Amino acid sequence: MVDNATRSKRKEAFSKVDLYPVTCQRLSAGRSNLSVLQAVLKGGSRIIQLRETDLPDRALYKMALDFRRITSEAGVLLVINDRVDIALAVDADGVHLGQDDLPVDIARKLAPELLIGVSTHSTDEALRAQKQGADYLNIGPIFPTNTKDGLHRFLGPDAITEIGGKVSVPFTIMGGINGSNIDQVVSRGAKKVAVVTAITQAIDMEEAVRLLRQKIAG
Amino acid sequence: MVDNATRSKRKEAFSKVDLYPVTCQRLSAGRSNLSVLQAVLKGGSRIIQLRETDLPDRALYKMALDFRRITSEAGVLLVINDRVDIALAVDADGVHLGQDDLPVDIARKLAPELLIGVSTHSTDEALRAQKQGADYLNIGPIFPTNTKDGLHRFLGPDAITEIGGKVSVPFTIMGGINGSNIDQVVSRGAKKVAVVTAITQAIDMEEAVRLLRQKIAG
Repeated sequence: MVDNATRSKRKEAFSKVDLYPVTCQRLSAGRSNLSVLQAVLKGGSRIIQLRETDLPDRALYKMALDFRRITSEAGVLLVINDRVDIALAVDADGVHLGQDDLPVDIARKLAPELLIGVSTHSTDEALRAQKQGADYLNIGPIFPTNTKDGLHRFLGPDAITEIGGKVSVPFTIMGGINGSNIDQVVSRGAKKVAVVTAITQAIDMEEAVRLLRQKIAG
Repeated sequence: MVDNATRSKRKEAFSKVDLYPVTCQRLSAGRSNLSVLQAVLKGGSRIIQLRETDLPDRALYKMALDFRRITSEAGVLLVINDRVDIALAVDADGVHLGQDDLPVDIARKLAPELLIGVSTHSTDEALRAQKQGADYLNIGPIFPTNTKDGLHRFLGPDAITEIGGKVSVPFTIMGGINGSNIDQVVSRGAKKVAVVTAITQAIDMEEAVRLLRQKIAG
């Protein structure tokens, strides 16, 4: 496995992530992804994941270019969902892969310098992704969520210690987390929390980012 | 622009292509893409494009791996539709991009060694793709086609001389071409003809490949 200075710096930056916002146009109450990004930056988050599964590639590429320009100016990490080629094309910091995407070890060969995150839903998936070279994992869904159609039933917050306790790479947790239940995950040791609608559907997105970050800081 | 020995060899192999078969699972009369591939190889075609827009990435990757193994054994070129990352992951010979996919010049940076083909529907698009570094173009649709939903109206066979006459890179033509009308395109100078259903929906796929190739040879 190739490592390098760029990836090491990205891992270092990732270690400081608390709130991990993820975009989703169709669940953003009519707000644009760019307006979500602006609120995320103003709220002080150190990362954002661009996740848009319904756009043609060229439109996604152009949106990713905009995200890259703005996040670079802000010194914030940019992760692209699913697409290794688009992540490389815009010089994103990372790519996030699901269980139905390219295998981690294959993505790693194509992109030695990218952070690779992997969505996992069990201890087996988490250990496998770690072994294949994932830089970080996502564990979820912790609570019921509408963000993904037909996904697995939720794991419950105890998965944070059960699965998270068995892996050595950093992990985010995700799935139905909001201001009302985030204490349940923080109290179980979650240091990095990924959310979509807790920001995109908040009355005040910037304020939501700040409040969620404060709760993670404890 | 980077060129290299691998790409040069691929361009040389592409120059010998006559029939350019493209897969499409939903328009294959229940046949598997692998059975289409086998017929294409038996019929003597020198290239195949794997085009599947409905599969999850990992399933597409696995299918592309199978295609790569089989085409490599047969000494036949493999082109992957749309996806630069999957083309690189399986060491395909090329990637084929539409007007809504990654721009050619960006794809070229990611994949200096791949043949890059581009679908074009006008002289402007053809000249732009050539200028941006396409190794070959596709010009179409020549005749009405059901393969793509809501695509442009057809160009008519005279586009072969009108558009093809203005470009210097090799080009395939496509769109509604079958055994009954292929003479109209060959007589206008088409040397490379791309088809989907003329093979996938033929009663005898292997025989269809042979007959179409004979007609192109003139």
